[in-house]
Amino acid sequence: MLIREIRITPVAFRDPPLLNATGVHEPWALRGIVEVISDEGITGLGETYGDLSHLDRLCAAARELVGVEVHGHHAQYARVAASVGTDVFTDQHGLTGAGSNQKTVDAVFSPFEVACLDIRAKAAGVRVADLLGGPVRQEVPYSAYLFYKWAGHPGGTEDRFGQALDPEGIVAQARMLVGEYGFESVKLKGGVLPPDDEIDTVLALRDAFPGLPLRLDPNVAWTPQTSVRVGKALDGVLEYLEDPTPDIEGMAEVAAQVSMPLATNMCVVTHEHLPPAIARRAVGVLLTDHHYWGGLLRSTQVAALCETFGLELSMHSNTHLGISLAAMTHLAAATPNLTHACDTHTPWQDGQDVIAPGSLRISGGAVALPDGPGLGIELDRDALAVLHEQYRTCGVRRRDDTGYMCRFEPGFRPRRRCW
Amino acid sequence: MLIREIRITPVAFRDPPLLNATGVHEPWALRGIVEVISDEGITGLGETYGDLSHLDRLCAAARELVGVEVHGHHAQYARVAASVGTDVFTDQHGLTGAGSNQKTVDAVFSPFEVACLDIRAKAAGVRVADLLGGPVRQEVPYSAYLFYKWAGHPGGTEDRFGQALDPEGIVAQARMLVGEYGFESVKLKGGVLPPDDEIDTVLALRDAFPGLPLRLDPNVAWTPQTSVRVGKALDGVLEYLEDPTPDIEGMAEVAAQVSMPLATNMCVVTHEHLPPAIARRAVGVLLTDHHYWGGLLRSTQVAALCETFGLELSMHSNTHLGISLAAMTHLAAATPNLTHACDTHTPWQDGQDVIAPGSLRISGGAVALPDGPGLGIELDRDALAVLHEQYRTCGVRRRDDTGYMCRFEPGFRPRRRCW
Repeated sequence: MLIREIRITPVAFRDPPLLNATGVHEPWALRGIVEVISDEGITGLGETYGDLSHLDRLCAAARELVGVEVHGHHAQYARVAASVGTDVFTDQHGLTGAGSNQKTVDAVFSPFEVACLDIRAKAAGVRVADLLGGPVRQEVPYSAYLFYKWAGHPGGTEDRFGQALDPEGIVAQARMLVGEYGFESVKLKGGVLPPDDEIDTVLALRDAFPGLPLRLDPNVAWTPQTSVRVGKALDGVLEYLEDPTPDIEGMAEVAAQVSMPLATNMCVVTHEHLPPAIARRAVGVLLTDHHYWGGLLRSTQVAALCETFGLELSMHSNTHLGISLAAMTHLAAATPNLTHACDTHTPWQDGQDVIAPGSLRISGGAVALPDGPGLGIELDRDALAVLHEQYRTCGVRRRDDTGYMCRFEPGFRPRRRCW
Repeated sequence: MLIREIRITPVAFRDPPLLNATGVHEPWALRGIVEVISDEGITGLGETYGDLSHLDRLCAAARELVGVEVHGHHAQYARVAASVGTDVFTDQHGLTGAGSNQKTVDAVFSPFEVACLDIRAKAAGVRVADLLGGPVRQEVPYSAYLFYKWAGHPGGTEDRFGQALDPEGIVAQARMLVGEYGFESVKLKGGVLPPDDEIDTVLALRDAFPGLPLRLDPNVAWTPQTSVRVGKALDGVLEYLEDPTPDIEGMAEVAAQVSMPLATNMCVVTHEHLPPAIARRAVGVLLTDHHYWGGLLRSTQVAALCETFGLELSMHSNTHLGISLAAMTHLAAATPNLTHACDTHTPWQDGQDVIAPGSLRISGGAVALPDGPGLGIELDRDALAVLHEQYRTCGVRRRDDTGYMCRFEPGFRPRRRCW
């Protein structure tokens, strides 16, 4: 079964003004939707970043993949690597760690790999999870992903989530998300307010939701010293502390002095980071992300490696749509050593999607594994056309949280190891 | 697609008197042949050890696997682990390292996993290699596996391979195997003669086959000091030195002092050995073996881990038949970072097999990947019946190289760290 055709459609959808260490989410978020069609007429779906330079690389890779065997994982990877060459994609937000050639290849490869697994599973009449070892859970737990945020985009109206710039605002946001989706764990995006304010917010969440696992992720805004101070202040409160400070060295320094595990999707983002991170005991929880770890099969290999080295596992999320949520759910369902609920931005998209509604729903804090075949989702071509038209007209061509923030706070600089 | 039925058939076949550090091969070698039949009537094949206690564990596991989804890799593994419980299988020859519960589970699981992959590939109309990432090579290289040996079993006639107890005998054996099969690398099983004699044999091979990669495997017969001395004497001559001395500590001590990489299938035999071996830089080449690393998919995960940590890869072999050779060939074909030719005992079986002839042939030192579907081989039921009848009557129920040797050299003891 060969790859006959590949379609790549950039889309844009509305995103609330969520704050983070590098700025604030723009009014439009971008994604790239990938359709791979086999010579038997089976279509597989993938989803990835929508930055223009990434789309260019996807198109270059797609030209090399037409005619390749759908099962040819290694052959496809080699073609993608050749098409990427020595290129390095460095995103503008820096929230997923440093760029590298390996990470660029893995990110370009990922949506094609997911789409090919979707085709293979459909052809075999099974779920994608069945090609990844089979589900070990029928429901995949996700966590509530809380953000400090403005009431609405400047110049626009207040969105339905409202303002959250202090502990009370975050607790209210948490009550809304937990109430609507039943989340059983909570992650706060930090790196926005001074560390003591974020400690206060976490303590307020602890008081409001006693017993609910809590996480805090300041996206490397802190020094190792501050990280240790926050870690000690939140001893016994946090399930894990995520990327408090940059780099493996900094994380190792902190890890040796705090009680909770450190998690990362920033200092360990490709295979080359695993040996030094493991040698230095820099992290206790790896947040994998199939979008930049080279797709689902390669993510299962990383999961196996984590099992071997005693690392715990969770899953990172950037802003995404339903194809990514389906892929994450199949992968998580088939990962025995997934030890923590996954991150997802889904609630912030508030129903906007390119897939037909009904197959994926967060209920009781979890997404039930779709029945399949394949990913168990269908592209909604009308919705895809609407979101593509939004892409055409929205004017955004790469994610730039910092540039957007600077329009309102001209002196703003990304907070990296700054507190 | 569910597992409807499992058949396990022990077989015995003639084996020459091959010498090693723990004794000598008995006249009969044992294997267990596993057939898994799906509810759609597709049969998958697996092959494993034939020791009686292993057969008992296979039967117990098989009872738990009937009714389980053929794609349910993780679910099957969990059932096998439950059926094994806390049991530990320790073989009588000790040539594959220490026993452990993990290794026991992986060894029991392996033939069922291979058989299920065979079913899945047949159902999808693809090769098993296509389920492992797709072939990156169409021919898998194997090495000539040389043994010091007696002319024939005591009391019997001389076999066609003849005696090999000195450099001349080994060179003649190498000429026969290289001539018949076209091998392009050579491995000598050592640990039989005093180390200086084995050095002489390797040097004789170097002179007889200039440029051909050479390996020496004394199966932990030496002390670290002797290992270093041999390593220095064979500097520039050996492709790698395999398991010269026991344990990760001993290997690390030797690795730091010799120029060639150390290979192992004895000090790193389950996942739990990887972290300390990597931390100590004990080995440079891992010889995986899907028979005790939990099957083909788990072996691809180990291969990915080796890639991440810069370990080279080759493949270990015990005495085996064609189902194992097919499985090894599919796995090796789909392993990009297989950096050395694989071991195989196939020539010593001299055509005895349970599969129909024609699909697997060593030519030019390599086995062409069978076309498939599945493993691309067929069970020869007449041959299976003959080999099973041989099992019934041969009297051997577990491999015991030491016990057999002691019948002729009553004072013989396995040579472990003895020279």
